[in-house]
Amino acid sequence: MKGKKVFVIGAGMSSFGEHWSSSLRELIVDAAVKAIADSKIEGKDLQAIYGGCMASGQLTGQEHIGALIADYLGINPLPSTRLEAACASGSVALRNGIMAIASGFYDVVAVGGVEKMTEVSTELASTALGGAGDEEWELFNGATFPALYALMARRHMLEYGTTEEQMAMVAVKNHANGAKNPFAQYQKEITLKQVMESAYVASPLKLFDCSPLSDGAAAVILASEEFAKKICEKPVEFIASSQASDTIALANRKSFTSLKATQVASKEAFTQSGLKAKDIDVAEVHDCFTIAELMAMEDIGFCEKGKSGKFIEAGETKIGGSIPVNTSGGLKACGHPVGATGVKQVVELTWQLRGDANGRQVKGAEIGLTHNVGGSGATSVIHILKKAF
Amino acid sequence: MKGKKVFVIGAGMSSFGEHWSSSLRELIVDAAVKAIADSKIEGKDLQAIYGGCMASGQLTGQEHIGALIADYLGINPLPSTRLEAACASGSVALRNGIMAIASGFYDVVAVGGVEKMTEVSTELASTALGGAGDEEWELFNGATFPALYALMARRHMLEYGTTEEQMAMVAVKNHANGAKNPFAQYQKEITLKQVMESAYVASPLKLFDCSPLSDGAAAVILASEEFAKKICEKPVEFIASSQASDTIALANRKSFTSLKATQVASKEAFTQSGLKAKDIDVAEVHDCFTIAELMAMEDIGFCEKGKSGKFIEAGETKIGGSIPVNTSGGLKACGHPVGATGVKQVVELTWQLRGDANGRQVKGAEIGLTHNVGGSGATSVIHILKKAF
Repeated sequence: MKGKKVFVIGAGMSSFGEHWSSSLRELIVDAAVKAIADSKIEGKDLQAIYGGCMASGQLTGQEHIGALIADYLGINPLPSTRLEAACASGSVALRNGIMAIASGFYDVVAVGGVEKMTEVSTELASTALGGAGDEEWELFNGATFPALYALMARRHMLEYGTTEEQMAMVAVKNHANGAKNPFAQYQKEITLKQVMESAYVASPLKLFDCSPLSDGAAAVILASEEFAKKICEKPVEFIASSQASDTIALANRKSFTSLKATQVASKEAFTQSGLKAKDIDVAEVHDCFTIAELMAMEDIGFCEKGKSGKFIEAGETKIGGSIPVNTSGGLKACGHPVGATGVKQVVELTWQLRGDANGRQVKGAEIGLTHNVGGSGATSVIHILKKAF
Repeated sequence: MKGKKVFVIGAGMSSFGEHWSSSLRELIVDAAVKAIADSKIEGKDLQAIYGGCMASGQLTGQEHIGALIADYLGINPLPSTRLEAACASGSVALRNGIMAIASGFYDVVAVGGVEKMTEVSTELASTALGGAGDEEWELFNGATFPALYALMARRHMLEYGTTEEQMAMVAVKNHANGAKNPFAQYQKEITLKQVMESAYVASPLKLFDCSPLSDGAAAVILASEEFAKKICEKPVEFIASSQASDTIALANRKSFTSLKATQVASKEAFTQSGLKAKDIDVAEVHDCFTIAELMAMEDIGFCEKGKSGKFIEAGETKIGGSIPVNTSGGLKACGHPVGATGVKQVVELTWQLRGDANGRQVKGAEIGLTHNVGGSGATSVIHILKKAF
C-alpha cells in the first residue's frame, strides 16, 4: 500500500437490529464513543471524521451526515465528511480515511458507518435500496434487489449446478456464527429445513436467503504508525485497500455469475499486500443474499470458479474450516444497516486479529480480508488487515 | 499542504440551468468529457473518480453516483466514489481527490460535482435541501433554508446596521458577472430597484437575494507534479485545502452573524499557504443568499467584522475592485446545482488563473480562493489555488 502506514487502534459498534427508539444520530454516537473508548484516545485527539451512509436522505430526510456526526460527538470544528457507494459506503469511508492518514494530512481519524432503515415502510426502504442499482433502467421498471440477485443465482445454478440447498447452507452457517455475536440482529441458529421451507421472495431466493433491513452503526479509529505506537497495545495494520467499479445495471455485464469489480479489487489487494487467497485466515464478505457469498468465494479466489457450492458443503468456510467466512454472522445474521456494513466488517476482523472474538474466535488468526459490495456489483472494495503486535 | 503537490490540469462544466431534457448522468458526463478534453489526457489515463452530489436519492431516486459516473464515462473498473457534505459536496470531493494524489495512491484523478434539481416540485426540492440542516429540529418544524439565512440577515442588520440595499448590491454585482459567463443560469444584468421590488421569500430576504434551483455539473482533472509537468502547459496548483464543521442546527451556535466553520477553515488555509487575505487576487464564495456573501467577506478576512455592507457599497468586490468576488456569477446568477458548486468554483478559478475567463477576466490574477458552505454553515471548505506556469 502506498503512502504512510495505517493502523486500526480502536473499534466499536452498536448492536444491529430494529432500533425503533434510537435515531440515526444516536446509533452513530453509540458506535463512535465505543471506538474512541476502545482506542484510549479522547474525542479531542481526533483530526477528521469519515462517515459512510447510503440513503439517509430517503430513509430519514437527513443529509449532511458528516457534520451531524461531528456535532453530536461534540467535537466541532473537526472536518467531517460523508461518503457513499451504496452498500459499500462504509468501505469507501474507510478507504478515504486510510488515504487521509497515508497522505500525512492527519495522524488520527475516526471512520464510521451508519444506516437507519426501519423508520419507513418496507416498500419505501426497498425503493431507496433500489437506488443502488440503475434507477432508470432497473428500479423504475420494477427490478428491486432480490430480483437482481435472483437472476445471478439462476444463472449460477444453470452454469455450475449450484443448488438451493447449497445457498441455504450459507444462511445456516452465518446464523450459527451470528448466534455467538452479541451485536447481531439474529442471535439464533436456523436449520437447513427452515431455510428451504421459507417463502420465495424472488425465486430461487427465499426469505432466509436474504439479509434483513437493519438499524445500526460501527466505527473504527485509524492512526499513523507514530501515533499508534504511542497509544495502542494491539494495533491492526491495513496492508491493502482496493476498490473497483462495474456497470451500474446488471444487464450491461458480460457475466451474471461473477462480479468483475470484486475480481479486479481482489487482484489489486493481493498485489498490494504480496499475499494470496490461501494466506487469509478469516474473511468478512458481502452476503446480502446467500448467492453473493458463494460468488464472492470464487471471485476472491478462495475456491475455483463454479465450485463454491461444493466449498460450502465441505464446511470449508465454517469456523474451524480452511477459511472461516462471516464469523460476525455476515449481513445475513448480523444484519445489514447498509452504510455501517463495511465498517462492521473491519470491527469484526479487528476483534478476530486481537483474539477478542469471544465464542466465535478463529484460532491464531493473523490476516483478515473484508469484501464489501455496492449495489449488484457496480462497486466492490477489498481491505486486508494484519495483526501488528 | 502536506503530502505530494497537486495540480489542476483540466477543467470543464455543463451550462447551469433548468435542463429538462438532460438527466443527471448526461450532465456529469458532459462536464467530465470537457474536463478530460481540456487536460489532453484520455479517459483511460484516469486512476480514480471522486464525485460530489448532495441529494440525488431524494431528487432522482438514484444513489451510488460514483459507480454511475464511471459507467457512463465508459471507464470501468475505475474506483469511483461519491462524497456528500450538503451544498459543499463538490468541495469535499475535491479535498478527497487532493488527498488521493497527495498520498501517492494515484497520479491522476477526476473530480466531479453534479445535481439534478428540477425534476421534482419546488416543494420537494426545498424539503430535500432542508436535509442539509437539522432535519429533526429545523426542517421538521418548518424551517427551510431561506428562513435560516433570513435569521442570520436580521441579526446582521441589527448588530451592524447592514441594509437590505447592501444585500441587494451582491445580487446586482453577481448578475453583472453572470451576464458575461456563457455557462451561467442567468446571463442577465439586474438593477438594484428590481432586487428591492422583488417579493419577500423570508423577510428580509427577497426572491433576488436567493440562489435558484439548478441542474448542472462541473469537473476537474487533478494530477501529481510528475504527471502535470509531462502533459500540461498551464497547470494550477492547490496550495491549501481545509475543511471545518459546526453544529448542524443554527440554534446551537454562539453567533448568527458569522460562520465559525468558515473562520476556522480560512485560518487553516492561510496557515497552509503562508498567505493572507490581502494576497488573494480573485475569489469564488458561497452566496446561496446575498447575506452569505457579505458574511463570507468578514469570516474569510477580506474586510473587518461588520463592515461587509460598506465593502460591497464601495465596489471592492467588483471586477476591477480590490478583491473581485464571484466572477462566475456565484451561486446567485451562475446557478447552484448543489453538488456541482464547489467544483464549479475551482473551474472558474482555473480559467481565471490561466487567463481564460473571457469578458470577466481579472487582470493578472495569480492566486484564487474558493469558499463553499454546507447547510447553514455546519461544513465549510476553503481551497487556495495558484498559477503554476
